[in-house]
Amino acid sequence: MKPIIENLDLLKLASGDQLSLQVYKFIGKKSQKKVYIQSNLHGSEIVGNAVIAQLIDFFSGLKPDQLDGEIWLVPICNPMGTNQRNHFFATGRYNSYDGKDWNRIFWDYQKVCQDLEGFVKAHFNLDPLTIQESFLKQQKTAFTKQLDKINRPSSAPLFEQYRYQLQSLSIDANYVIDIHSSSNQGIDYLFCFPGKQEDSAKYFNIDYGILMNTYDGDAFDEAFMKPWLALENKFKELGRDIKFDRESWTLELGSGMQMKPESVAVGVAGIKNYLFKKNVLKLPNYLPEITDIKLVSRQQIKSYYAPTGGMIQNRMNLKQPVKVGDKLYEILSFNKQEKLPEIIDIYAETDGFIFDVSTSYSVNQGEYVLALLSPE
Amino acid sequence: MKPIIENLDLLKLASGDQLSLQVYKFIGKKSQKKVYIQSNLHGSEIVGNAVIAQLIDFFSGLKPDQLDGEIWLVPICNPMGTNQRNHFFATGRYNSYDGKDWNRIFWDYQKVCQDLEGFVKAHFNLDPLTIQESFLKQQKTAFTKQLDKINRPSSAPLFEQYRYQLQSLSIDANYVIDIHSSSNQGIDYLFCFPGKQEDSAKYFNIDYGILMNTYDGDAFDEAFMKPWLALENKFKELGRDIKFDRESWTLELGSGMQMKPESVAVGVAGIKNYLFKKNVLKLPNYLPEITDIKLVSRQQIKSYYAPTGGMIQNRMNLKQPVKVGDKLYEILSFNKQEKLPEIIDIYAETDGFIFDVSTSYSVNQGEYVLALLSPE
Amino acid sequence: MKPIIENLDLLKLASGDQLSLQVYKFIGKKSQKKVYIQSNLHGSEIVGNAVIAQLIDFFSGLKPDQLDGEIWLVPICNPMGTNQRNHFFATGRYNSYDGKDWNRIFWDYQKVCQDLEGFVKAHFNLDPLTIQESFLKQQKTAFTKQLDKINRPSSAPLFEQYRYQLQSLSIDANYVIDIHSSSNQGIDYLFCFPGKQEDSAKYFNIDYGILMNTYDGDAFDEAFMKPWLALENKFKELGRDIKFDRESWTLELGSGMQMKPESVAVGVAGIKNYLFKKNVLKLPNYLPEITDIKLVSRQQIKSYYAPTGGMIQNRMNLKQPVKVGDKLYEILSFNKQEKLPEIIDIYAETDGFIFDVSTSYSVNQGEYVLALLSPE
Amino acid sequence: MKPIIENLDLLKLASGDQLSLQVYKFIGKKSQKKVYIQSNLHGSEIVGNAVIAQLIDFFSGLKPDQLDGEIWLVPICNPMGTNQRNHFFATGRYNSYDGKDWNRIFWDYQKVCQDLEGFVKAHFNLDPLTIQESFLKQQKTAFTKQLDKINRPSSAPLFEQYRYQLQSLSIDANYVIDIHSSSNQGIDYLFCFPGKQEDSAKYFNIDYGILMNTYDGDAFDEAFMKPWLALENKFKELGRDIKFDRESWTLELGSGMQMKPESVAVGVAGIKNYLFKKNVLKLPNYLPEITDIKLVSRQQIKSYYAPTGGMIQNRMNLKQPVKVGDKLYEILSFNKQEKLPEIIDIYAETDGFIFDVSTSYSVNQGEYVLALLSPE
Repeated sequence: MKPIIENLDLLKLASGDQLSLQVYKFIGKKSQKKVYIQSNLHGSEIVGNAVIAQLIDFFSGLKPDQLDGEIWLVPICNPMGTNQRNHFFATGRYNSYDGKDWNRIFWDYQKVCQDLEGFVKAHFNLDPLTIQESFLKQQKTAFTKQLDKINRPSSAPLFEQYRYQLQSLSIDANYVIDIHSSSNQGIDYLFCFPGKQEDSAKYFNIDYGILMNTYDGDAFDEAFMKPWLALENKFKELGRDIKFDRESWTLELGSGMQMKPESVAVGVAGIKNYLFKKNVLKLPNYLPEITDIKLVSRQQIKSYYAPTGGMIQNRMNLKQPVKVGDKLYEILSFNKQEKLPEIIDIYAETDGFIFDVSTSYSVNQGEYVLALLSPE
Repeated sequence: MKPIIENLDLLKLASGDQLSLQVYKFIGKKSQKKVYIQSNLHGSEIVGNAVIAQLIDFFSGLKPDQLDGEIWLVPICNPMGTNQRNHFFATGRYNSYDGKDWNRIFWDYQKVCQDLEGFVKAHFNLDPLTIQESFLKQQKTAFTKQLDKINRPSSAPLFEQYRYQLQSLSIDANYVIDIHSSSNQGIDYLFCFPGKQEDSAKYFNIDYGILMNTYDGDAFDEAFMKPWLALENKFKELGRDIKFDRESWTLELGSGMQMKPESVAVGVAGIKNYLFKKNVLKLPNYLPEITDIKLVSRQQIKSYYAPTGGMIQNRMNLKQPVKVGDKLYEILSFNKQEKLPEIIDIYAETDGFIFDVSTSYSVNQGEYVLALLSPE
Repeated sequence: MKPIIENLDLLKLASGDQLSLQVYKFIGKKSQKKVYIQSNLHGSEIVGNAVIAQLIDFFSGLKPDQLDGEIWLVPICNPMGTNQRNHFFATGRYNSYDGKDWNRIFWDYQKVCQDLEGFVKAHFNLDPLTIQESFLKQQKTAFTKQLDKINRPSSAPLFEQYRYQLQSLSIDANYVIDIHSSSNQGIDYLFCFPGKQEDSAKYFNIDYGILMNTYDGDAFDEAFMKPWLALENKFKELGRDIKFDRESWTLELGSGMQMKPESVAVGVAGIKNYLFKKNVLKLPNYLPEITDIKLVSRQQIKSYYAPTGGMIQNRMNLKQPVKVGDKLYEILSFNKQEKLPEIIDIYAETDGFIFDVSTSYSVNQGEYVLALLSPE
Repeated sequence: MKPIIENLDLLKLASGDQLSLQVYKFIGKKSQKKVYIQSNLHGSEIVGNAVIAQLIDFFSGLKPDQLDGEIWLVPICNPMGTNQRNHFFATGRYNSYDGKDWNRIFWDYQKVCQDLEGFVKAHFNLDPLTIQESFLKQQKTAFTKQLDKINRPSSAPLFEQYRYQLQSLSIDANYVIDIHSSSNQGIDYLFCFPGKQEDSAKYFNIDYGILMNTYDGDAFDEAFMKPWLALENKFKELGRDIKFDRESWTLELGSGMQMKPESVAVGVAGIKNYLFKKNVLKLPNYLPEITDIKLVSRQQIKSYYAPTGGMIQNRMNLKQPVKVGDKLYEILSFNKQEKLPEIIDIYAETDGFIFDVSTSYSVNQGEYVLALLSPE
């Protein structure tokens, strides 16, 4: 089957050139299900582009009856971030115009939803699908006010115009997958919302997941999922246990600015497996692989920052196991007080393993050096 | 009288060079009062440096008995921001390392204070000064945990190490003044917390103030003031109306990257006047000037963003009065569709006057053009 | 008459979006003459875009027989530079990827032309137009090798791909006009090649010109003009005084990031006047204005750099006359040696007037403050 | 023996903080010989800092009679470059203020030396050491004019103030070693001036060297060596074959932003070996290692640039041998024309091996991908 390919105007630059988004839509046997997959929201996190390119290839080989629902794919979903350069580096984590992190800008219906309790009471005894449709409709109505604002003479800042486009494409999806990478050098892992997603997480063929008990706020995955979680919680509070067919995932595949084939392979296989499990892909004789994913809390990941300026030396490697008190790295620290340079040893505060390391070995005081994942 | 001048290590750079903060302390006749004044937290907002230099000059001419309390001054309080360059421009609003706005990073005791109600109950009938001292002591104990964290092997990110230094200097002040400017081109105004500060606001010789009914969060003025406002509110809630001798001000003087003499003069005269009113300065025969400052809400300031990319033309000028429907500016918009360039007129949504304008006349879609202050 | 509008692919970004150039061509009564006008080569120098927009308007009102030759206009000729941002500033003087100044990258036939003497000898007695055509043909042959290189698997760096596009459009023009502005805040002036252009310079309605006795190298105007000047010089050396119908101009209109209406007006009027003088425009009853332009040498313009770091105060204004020994500006200089801030006065080394001033009043040691134009 | 450690003021920042250079001087048995070693001129090329730290350690263990001459070491010789950040990346190849490459700014006596022939004639029959001293004296006289300029009210741009400091330290050295790295990911190699240095090159324990038959211009190694080469050439031209005791080296060790232990080890061992060969180090029983270094010309290194924008995939690895026609890499190229993404294969134009690869796998059209070293 062939995808429908649609190009959407995103942003007109000062030069008169236009940036746009291109959506690849695979429409299978009609159903309610919609899957939305995007990549490269942070400009240097490019692995997901290759994942999506390979998925497009794979889906193109399917017959329509092998796809139950529709899959929308948006590679390089943030051209502003992807194209940005400083020296030879693709630095696109935040907008160089206003410093905003591209993944802390999204519209969160939970924050503006006025009377969730009223909604729940009014829909208390209806069937889940009807409730889902009704809540989505209400969400869309609120969302549309964004566009009213954009269309006024005072318009809206870039980040509001941008998020409007991206969330228009995804707001009505059942499953959202946002593919990121470490901004530095990291292992493959995912972010998982607590509850029913914990079971689905096993299908991504990834060893580690962070369970999102707390939120940073306004990330793409959160903005999609939080209203639904709030709705489920409110139902529960009022006495009905109900689950909506909504899941939201952030996959973190490999390292920034790099295209590691192993991370690409993990992404492609994991997404196929997940879509099979979700009955979106109908693959005869396919045997899904189930990984015993270890879900940890954010608090188990400890970032180490340079206590002084200098050059990192003899740092432990990514994935290397660590015991409390092990030397994690050295700082070769120079001075301007007519003294010899000194070497400062930094020791592990806990057991664990090296979860992520900085790309640069040169640090000003307070810059990031590595992260350690500790067992509970 | 001469100031005590102290230099404090701030940050060691990768090169081994050290950045530091220099504090100028004028110590008058002994009293409980402490005034803390800083400037240039955002790297391009330099007007306050000249204000502080002139205040240092002025205070140096005082006799000790003309100063009741002590005044600490920290010009160029953010060397990282001040020294940063991109092309010929001093861009220091956010840290180029992590995109963090230098004025959205501060430690807010209100967010970590566990049992405010318990504190209020335990101190309910004590005199205000004793309560103040007790609350400050508790605040400092919590604050010190920041340093414990910094001193661990994992240390803390730059912004936490930086704010620790700045807040150590100011946490026990009675009055805090943080001098900013527009990042673009703006009028002189101030931010004022609601309540007792509204009266003091008249002494700054400034025509407009924004009343902070809502907070952006984690700004320097807020981090200082919010715990005290929360404490007052809790007392009130429990039945006692009490005001602590704490005020926090952000002055916005003039334009970014510029040193307008008029804005410097406004800052110097206003601060002198305010300190006189607060009985910190004892100036015989001094007649304070009282300005009928207009306090407005944030909602009355409307920012206009470019609805499309192009070049700004024929924009109304700073301070110019506006009627709804007036043409505020034009965008000369080019295209890459083999059409003629077009001129798009943008009209005012409300009456008001031009409060602030962008420094750059070249806009990508969604970039800031101007702000309009509307009457209520 | 209507322009032919052509859109040319310039560059494909990592995101798959395409940047392009748009050329507006007014084709008049057939003739050999071609005029090429571009603007915004440095990304923050936007005045020329409005000049070109107004010229397009004006030419659109002409009848074909009022135009003798053809005029090609390329506004925003460098989208990469125009769209680049750092904080709120349009910083596009150099490519943030490699640091290359966008106006020091052009292909200069003079540097690769092997046997100019052979060419002159072989064409010594031919008529000027034939020589001109023959030399242009030879130049184009050499130029085409650029494209061969670009089309090889190893391709060519961005600046070579970019210049190829821009020089393809302009290499066969008779008159080239490249509209710039100060990167900072400047007066209107132009660059003029010595010789026959000195007379034409009077038609631009501009008070000052810099006579290009020496070259910085590889600028757009130089790359166009140098081969022709070399050819004329070689003819002269061998005994024939011949002038080719080639002129190359850089206009410097106003200030960076700004759209000053007066500078736009100067540009529009000057170019019309020049094209009338060159018989490209046939305007009945038009009376050209001739300005007594003062042509100075680069050596008469003295840039002042900050001898130490600090804040600029009390600087003399743009265009203000200066006597040797006058105070040009002050630096309010802070320190980290526990001393009071000091004010350093900087005095003029010569008479003259203020030709250009920095946009930013904050200076690290060695940063630019102002330029002084001295009489000879 | 202990080094004399001297701290030299380099630059005062806008904030009043001072950047400085620290020189470590090991002074051995008195002699004419001076060795000057610096590192980290480009801010992200940090390997040399560890090399110098280890050399300082090693020299500290020597007895004075084991050192014949003096060795000056300047690690992190460019604090402005070293400390600069964009996102998590140390981008310091060029000055973010003016775009100038930090290694294309140096003062070259050859360009200003007026009457080299006169000098040679006047010194034709003197002994080499006398000529050397005389030429150095003349060079220093010219160099001092730089300082006169800096001390005038108009002062000089940062790069002139900076180079003055660095060249003051090195102008009278016999042997200069400037330690760089690839800005991207590279092998260890060196730059060697043709002639007598070709023999010394074998002592650096490095497999490849680039023979500098042509110059880029104004690099640190060139600015030091060119006057001496010009002097030798002029002597030769006039009939005397004379060699001065001057050598200049740029070592390229490893990759940007990284601290590879193997590259550090190569640098330390190579410099020791070279200083032994030069009789500066007197190490009993030391057996120098001689490497059969392969000296190639710049023309044998071919950089490959992206012919279109996209994501690099399946690139050959550093040091991997290549045959003409081999696939070097793929570009996964997206589009905004409603087409499928495509994969473009790029093939080798020649045999050779992969000499250097880009750190980023995301490319805008015209960005660097890899370099191939071809046999002659």
